[in-house]
Amino acid sequence: MNGILFVMTGASGVGKGTIRQAAVPDLGDIHYSISATTRPRREGEVDGVDYHFLDMAAFRAMLAHDALLEYAEYVGDYYGTPAMPVDAALSAGRDVLLEIELEGARQVREKRPEAVMLFIAPPSIAELERRLRGRGTDGETKIQRRLARARKELLAVREFDYVLVNDRLDEAVKAFRSVIRAERLRARRLSDEAVAALLRAT
Amino acid sequence: MNGILFVMTGASGVGKGTIRQAAVPDLGDIHYSISATTRPRREGEVDGVDYHFLDMAAFRAMLAHDALLEYAEYVGDYYGTPAMPVDAALSAGRDVLLEIELEGARQVREKRPEAVMLFIAPPSIAELERRLRGRGTDGETKIQRRLARARKELLAVREFDYVLVNDRLDEAVKAFRSVIRAERLRARRLSDEAVAALLRAT
Repeated sequence: MNGILFVMTGASGVGKGTIRQAAVPDLGDIHYSISATTRPRREGEVDGVDYHFLDMAAFRAMLAHDALLEYAEYVGDYYGTPAMPVDAALSAGRDVLLEIELEGARQVREKRPEAVMLFIAPPSIAELERRLRGRGTDGETKIQRRLARARKELLAVREFDYVLVNDRLDEAVKAFRSVIRAERLRARRLSDEAVAALLRAT
Repeated sequence: MNGILFVMTGASGVGKGTIRQAAVPDLGDIHYSISATTRPRREGEVDGVDYHFLDMAAFRAMLAHDALLEYAEYVGDYYGTPAMPVDAALSAGRDVLLEIELEGARQVREKRPEAVMLFIAPPSIAELERRLRGRGTDGETKIQRRLARARKELLAVREFDYVLVNDRLDEAVKAFRSVIRAERLRARRLSDEAVAALLRAT
């Protein structure tokens, strides 16, 4: 039985990473896919933990070898998901979580229509703006571009299976866990062996 | 925006009622539909709380007036769901929970294909037999009929959206809550007003 592929997306600054880090320890075996990116490393980020930080030449080489499940350009930088670790984990029956941009999420949905798609939304664009300014990692131009992009992406929420509004973090974490747990209970994922076990009479 | 119709079913003795009673107080506004039945009241059961206890004549009158959303015969007794309170709650935007037999669940799915269907399974038929004997409310003949019925019904698990195995009660309660919460987050249930609120820029 293959694992479940979960894809989460949402605007920069909406709190995807924070939700994931708070929720995942409580979710049993789930493989978090580490993206490759050409964007500069931020302070505190660790290569191979937060991202695989690559230069453009290395990123292009992966593309040329069809080694990315998805990739997207976002505000001048490239992001992509190495396919091999994802497929290895799914084949071993482990669930996999991707945290990626909207364009990449669409590519995954195209290639893997069985993926479970989660959209993390800010309570409002106004609140997202406050959070981006509070983070203090982007200049004014980047903030404006991120907000414009976020506004456009929100129009895509109905392409997803679930929409989680990150208003209060503890509620968003609970919601995230509920989606993962519920999807694991889907009847269509029951193996014949699991049904046989339920019917055991002794 | 209409509420969500949840339907839970599962063999007698599997712990449906226990799970529901433990889970519901933590789930916000959810209307529990009280079934009508012709089966004798058990000790501790209250008319209008556990069931509407009816005689056959009264039950037949409801059927004749098409006032039941579903009904089924089970081990010699009749059970049914009065339609009016269910529709009133859904129209008012409240979620509704039905706890009914398999035959009734199939009728609801037929009439309301948007209903979310949950099947509560025992860890095994052997464990269900232990629980039925432990409950001590049924004679040997009824126990054997309930087990035969449970075995047959387990073959229907794939007709449902979710299968929850009631092995450890606390885990089953958590699983039940997760399904309700996750379904409330479904993107397809988002109203246009909710999307407009996310886009608010001031």
